[in-house]
Amino acid sequence: MALKTAIPKGTRDFNPTEMGRRNYIFDEIKTVYRLYGFEPIETPSMELLSTLLGKYGEEGDKLLFRILNSGDFLKDVSQDDFAAKDLAKISGLMCERGLRYDLTVPFARYVVQHRNEIVFPFKRYQIQPVWRADRPQKGRYREFYQCDADVIGSDSLINEAEFVMIMDTLFGNLGIRTNIKINNRKILSGMVSLINRDEMLTEITTGIDKLDKIGIDGVRNELIEKGMTDKEFKKIKPLLTLSGDNRNKIEVMRATFNSISEGQKGIDEIEVILNLLSGYNFKNQFEFDLSLARGLNYYTGSIFEVKAVDVEIGSLCGGGRYDNLTGVFGLDGVSGVGISFGADRIYDVLEALNLFPESVSHSVKAIFVNFGNNEAQYCLQKATQIRQAGISVEVYPEPAKMKKQMSYADSKKIPFVIFVGENEMKNNLFTIKNMSSGDQQTVNFDNIIEILKQN
Amino acid sequence: MALKTAIPKGTRDFNPTEMGRRNYIFDEIKTVYRLYGFEPIETPSMELLSTLLGKYGEEGDKLLFRILNSGDFLKDVSQDDFAAKDLAKISGLMCERGLRYDLTVPFARYVVQHRNEIVFPFKRYQIQPVWRADRPQKGRYREFYQCDADVIGSDSLINEAEFVMIMDTLFGNLGIRTNIKINNRKILSGMVSLINRDEMLTEITTGIDKLDKIGIDGVRNELIEKGMTDKEFKKIKPLLTLSGDNRNKIEVMRATFNSISEGQKGIDEIEVILNLLSGYNFKNQFEFDLSLARGLNYYTGSIFEVKAVDVEIGSLCGGGRYDNLTGVFGLDGVSGVGISFGADRIYDVLEALNLFPESVSHSVKAIFVNFGNNEAQYCLQKATQIRQAGISVEVYPEPAKMKKQMSYADSKKIPFVIFVGENEMKNNLFTIKNMSSGDQQTVNFDNIIEILKQN
Repeated sequence: MALKTAIPKGTRDFNPTEMGRRNYIFDEIKTVYRLYGFEPIETPSMELLSTLLGKYGEEGDKLLFRILNSGDFLKDVSQDDFAAKDLAKISGLMCERGLRYDLTVPFARYVVQHRNEIVFPFKRYQIQPVWRADRPQKGRYREFYQCDADVIGSDSLINEAEFVMIMDTLFGNLGIRTNIKINNRKILSGMVSLINRDEMLTEITTGIDKLDKIGIDGVRNELIEKGMTDKEFKKIKPLLTLSGDNRNKIEVMRATFNSISEGQKGIDEIEVILNLLSGYNFKNQFEFDLSLARGLNYYTGSIFEVKAVDVEIGSLCGGGRYDNLTGVFGLDGVSGVGISFGADRIYDVLEALNLFPESVSHSVKAIFVNFGNNEAQYCLQKATQIRQAGISVEVYPEPAKMKKQMSYADSKKIPFVIFVGENEMKNNLFTIKNMSSGDQQTVNFDNIIEILKQN
Repeated sequence: MALKTAIPKGTRDFNPTEMGRRNYIFDEIKTVYRLYGFEPIETPSMELLSTLLGKYGEEGDKLLFRILNSGDFLKDVSQDDFAAKDLAKISGLMCERGLRYDLTVPFARYVVQHRNEIVFPFKRYQIQPVWRADRPQKGRYREFYQCDADVIGSDSLINEAEFVMIMDTLFGNLGIRTNIKINNRKILSGMVSLINRDEMLTEITTGIDKLDKIGIDGVRNELIEKGMTDKEFKKIKPLLTLSGDNRNKIEVMRATFNSISEGQKGIDEIEVILNLLSGYNFKNQFEFDLSLARGLNYYTGSIFEVKAVDVEIGSLCGGGRYDNLTGVFGLDGVSGVGISFGADRIYDVLEALNLFPESVSHSVKAIFVNFGNNEAQYCLQKATQIRQAGISVEVYPEPAKMKKQMSYADSKKIPFVIFVGENEMKNNLFTIKNMSSGDQQTVNFDNIIEILKQN
C-alpha cells in the first residue's frame, strides 16, 4: 500500500525540537505578562457565527472557517436557495459556528458575557490558536497562535507605560534587538485636521501605514491618487519624516498643533507616557514615530509596534488603545488597551539569529543502556530514584545493539549515557559517559545523581 | 441594546482561577511525562477528512465536526445530489477538512508521515483539545483536552511498567488516591477460547466492560442475550470475580489456561510487568483485574485503567498496547503502547476533594495602591525593580477610592498591598500590609523585596 498521508494546506505538525522552541517563546511571554499582573483566560475554539460575522470587514467574513451543523445540515436550505447559489445565505443556513479568527472579538464577547463576575480593571492574557482561510504563503499559516494581553476598564496611561515595559522586557529576555515605536491616533487625526481633510482619515492612515514598504514618494502617490492635493501633502510630509529625539518631536508637534485640540491631546498622552517611562532603563530602542499608523480601525489612542533591528521581517508585536471594544456587543464606555506578540515571527527571528538556547528542546538528561532483562530491571529501579530527584532519565526499552542504542541517545541529544553491565551490577557501580566531551568514569550511585544535577 | 452573548453548546470559557487549576494539572502531567523521557509534539486542529473518516466507527464519523470548504463550497454539488439529500455524500463534496476527534489517529498519521525523520522507539506526549459533536451533558463537552503519551516502535514490556509508574507518580503528586488496574487482551481472548466462543470476543469484551456499572448479574444477562449459554457463563464467572493478590490471580489463571497458549502469553506478560515493578514503591493501589476490558477494539495486549478511590466518577486514565496503529495508513508492523489522562475528570476529583493548592490560581504577589500621579510614577519605578527580582507586582492604574483599590486586591487574592503616600516617598519608606494576617509594617525597599521573596 502506498503511504499517503497529508495535512490541510497552511497547517503544521510540530516535532519535539520545534515544540521546545515554541514553548520557550510562549513561556517567556507568559512570564512577562504574569510579572505585570496579567492572568490567563481561554475561550472556545468555536464561536457562534453571530459573534464573529461583521467584526472583521467583508474580507474577514470570507476568511472565517465555518463548521457544518451536525445532523441534517440541509434542513433549512430550500430548493430555491440551492438554485440561487447565494453562498453567504446558504452557509448561514448550514453553519451556526465558526473557528475563532482572532482573540480580540472573543475577548470582547467574554467581557460582556461575564461582566458581573469580572472586577475591573481586568488584566487578562490569552495565548491560543486562531484560524484564517487565507492563502497560505511563507510565514503565513491558516492556524497560528496569538499571544494577547489587554487591560480593560481603565483609561490610565500607566497601562500604556507598562505595555512598553512588557515589550522591552520580553525582547530583552529573548536577546532580540528591537525598535519599539509609539504613536497616537489622535495625532494622526490632528494631522488630518491640519489640512482640513477629516473625511480622509482612513485613507490617510492606510497610506501612512505603508511608509516602511513603499517610501515617502510611494505614500505621496497613493494619497494624491486618493484625492489629496500636492500642497496638502507638502504640509504633512515634514511631520511624517520628522527626526530627532522623542522630546524634540513633542515640541515640534505641540507647536504645529497649537490650534488643534485633538492633536494636542495626543501629544499630551505621549508626553505623559514618556514621563512615566523616564526612570526606566530601556534594553531596546524606544521611539515616538509620527509615521506609525497601524491598520486596524478600532484604535482610538496610543498605538504600538515593535520591529526587529537585525532581521528584515514584519512587526513582532503590535497593539493600541480602543475606546469601545465591547460596544459591538452592547456594552458601551469600556476603554481598553492591549498588545499582541507574533510568536511565529519571533520564532523566525530567534532562528535567523541563532538565539534559541540549546537546552530548550531537550529535556532528557541521561539514558541507561539496556544489556538484557536482568540489567534492565535493575536500571529501572535506579532510574526511578533518579526521577524522584526530579531528573529526566530513560531506560532503553530493548536489549538492542549498542550502536542502535547510542544513535537513539544521539538523536535525542541526551547528554549522558549510563552503562550497567553484569560487573557494575555486582559491584554497585555505574559507568557514565559525557556525550559531548566523550569523558567516561565509573562511580557509585550518589555520584551519578550529583553529576546529573550539576549538568 | 440588550446584551446578548453566548458560546456554542458544549464549549466553555475558562476564567483565571479555572485556568490556574487547569494549568496545574497539565503541568503536573507534562512534568511526569518528561521525567520518563517523553517529548512533546503537536498536530493541526484540522485534519483532512480522508485521515479521520472510518477510524472511529460509523457513530464516530457522525460526531466529527466538518469544516465547510472556502470559496464556492457548492461547486461539486449537483442539483441531483441536493435533491437526493444524501448527507454523507453532500458533506463529502462540501467539506474536505474536519476537527480532530482524538489524538491517536493524528498521531498515527504523524508517525507515518514523518517516519523518515523519527528515530524509534518514539516516545511522544501530546496535550491538545479534541472536538466531538456529542450531546453535551454534565462532564461531557464538545471541546475538551486529551493528554496522551505513547511509545511507538518497541515491544518491550518495560514500556508498560513505566506507564504504570507514570500513573502512580502523577496521582501521587496530585494527592488523589486511585486504583491502577491492569489486564491483558490476550487473557480475555484466552477466556473466550476456554468456552470455545472465539467469534464472540467483541461482545464478551463489551459485556465485561460494563461489570462496574451493571454488576455480574447484569453482565450475565447481557451475554446470555447475545447467545452465550448459562453453562459457558458459569465457566468464566469465577475468573471475572477472582479475588486475592496479584500473584494468586496469576497462579489461578496459569492453571486455568494450561492448554490455551494465547491466554498463557497474556499471563506471562502480566508476570513480567509485575516483576519489573517488584522493586517499585506504589503510592496507589495496583491491581491485576481480570474483569478490566476497555472498549476500544485496537488494543491487543496490556490494558490499563485508573479509578479514583474517594470519588464516584469514570476512569481518570486509560490505555493499552496496540499492535498495528499505523496499519490503517499503510505502515504495518509498528507496535505501540500508550495512555491518556482525562484532565476534566481529574479537575472534578481535585475540586471535590479540595486538593487544589491555593497558590495555583494566583500569581500576583503585591499591588501598589495609587495615591495620585506623582506617587504612581514613583511606584512604577519601584515595581520595575521588584519585577526584575522575578516577583509579580501591580501598580493600581487609577487614583481611585481606597475601598475600590482594596477590593480589587481582594478579588485577585493578592497577598500584599503596598502603600506609598507623600510621607513615605519623602522618607524612602514603604508601608506593606499582609492581607491574610492584617499585619502592617513600614520598612525600607530592601525589606519589601525580602518580604515578598519569603512569602
